[in-house]
Amino acid sequence: MSAAALLPDRQPAHLTETACERSTLWQGHFLRLQRDCVRLPDGRQAWREYLHHPGAVMVIPCLDDGRLVVERQYRYPVQQAMIEFPAGKRDAGESAIVCAVRELREETGYTAREWARAGVLHPAIGYADECIEIWFARGLQAGPRALDDGEHLDVLVVDAEALLAAVRDGVVTDGKTLAGLLWWQRVSTGAWPLQWRTTDAWLGDDARSANMPAGAVVGAMGDRGGLADGLALPEACAGRVPATSGAGAGT
Amino acid sequence: MSAAALLPDRQPAHLTETACERSTLWQGHFLRLQRDCVRLPDGRQAWREYLHHPGAVMVIPCLDDGRLVVERQYRYPVQQAMIEFPAGKRDAGESAIVCAVRELREETGYTAREWARAGVLHPAIGYADECIEIWFARGLQAGPRALDDGEHLDVLVVDAEALLAAVRDGVVTDGKTLAGLLWWQRVSTGAWPLQWRTTDAWLGDDARSANMPAGAVVGAMGDRGGLADGLALPEACAGRVPATSGAGAGT
Repeated sequence: MSAAALLPDRQPAHLTETACERSTLWQGHFLRLQRDCVRLPDGRQAWREYLHHPGAVMVIPCLDDGRLVVERQYRYPVQQAMIEFPAGKRDAGESAIVCAVRELREETGYTAREWARAGVLHPAIGYADECIEIWFARGLQAGPRALDDGEHLDVLVVDAEALLAAVRDGVVTDGKTLAGLLWWQRVSTGAWPLQWRTTDAWLGDDARSANMPAGAVVGAMGDRGGLADGLALPEACAGRVPATSGAGAGT
Repeated sequence: MSAAALLPDRQPAHLTETACERSTLWQGHFLRLQRDCVRLPDGRQAWREYLHHPGAVMVIPCLDDGRLVVERQYRYPVQQAMIEFPAGKRDAGESAIVCAVRELREETGYTAREWARAGVLHPAIGYADECIEIWFARGLQAGPRALDDGEHLDVLVVDAEALLAAVRDGVVTDGKTLAGLLWWQRVSTGAWPLQWRTTDAWLGDDARSANMPAGAVVGAMGDRGGLADGLALPEACAGRVPATSGAGAGT
């Protein structure tokens, strides 16, 4: 079976569930718990409980000497400190590249000369609509951090092979970081080439698209969309348009 | 920095948050929404909202000809059909291997001659305590499926390289599946050897440990623990003991 044959249609009639009723069970600080009634492909009804999440960005920061920048942070839900690539939630109306530049600088102090968008990742498809855009950063320069109030984390520089060994040994178990390492491994061997652009080029395109009508932004940043200058880019999470339906990527 | 230096202590004093108050906001069908007050390392207080999840198992089913078995399933939270490795939630009191054998058979119809435990994965450390054990299965034999009531999914057999190409193209974006492909890639090249045992050997050990006191089970299946016959095994998610604190892996 070929890659394209795996998923010829993202809404196949024999699998797709459609909402018949939506309700918000709880609205938290940044998460919203939903309970929707859905119609199953066989016509029956069922309930789906899930979290609505504003979306996030993960950065794979590559130093010129080949080492990677990671963070050590306590994650209360899993009751332990975790090693992970820098990542953060998108602010309301914030594009992925603006979020990526901001989170990398705030959390690690690094700024990057060039960025490349790799792909997207859905971390918990059973109970959350979160979509994480995966970005690579290079041409890194260290600078001062600007952590959020109450945020505590260590910044570490590590050989990629040591990071992989730590996955093997059960030390690194964060899902998005493992997915990022799959991408890093394919990119670093040249198997999956990236389209690198300067930070200014990305931010310039972003500022231009922000002035376009919402519909045009969806068209430009949607499924397999391109940028203003005609570059073809990997699939993106939904852009600035609020994800009212809880949809993740593209279509 | 070496792999061991990344995380010498999973409860480092300068990062660890401790609960000062716990409350359940909502108890769903299989998820529980928690809101805990925590004391930060700097002595201040903050709130943490997260889902308690019973834990899950993901299976990477490897056919004798090298191809992999995956599923195509509609995932309502992300509003699209997704390609993913077989996975499922652990029933109350169910061990990971029993869950793995059950989910593979129920969802795909396959039974496996041999199994190997690879490691664990925390899919959404920002807002869920879910821990997924990653298991490899080989010596596969096709048989009848036994889907849960209301469960609809397609079973597909795919070349690993086509599955990887589908990640590159944005067709496969499920986080646990990407993490599974990192494991598959390292295992298939021989970089990360696995300890294969027959299904009967795993289930026999499991039955023996079920008859041990709860404390002994934690000791045997906890951080870097071994089985009754002395095999050293990768880190496991918490065993049969209910995870009252929402803790994930081992220590």
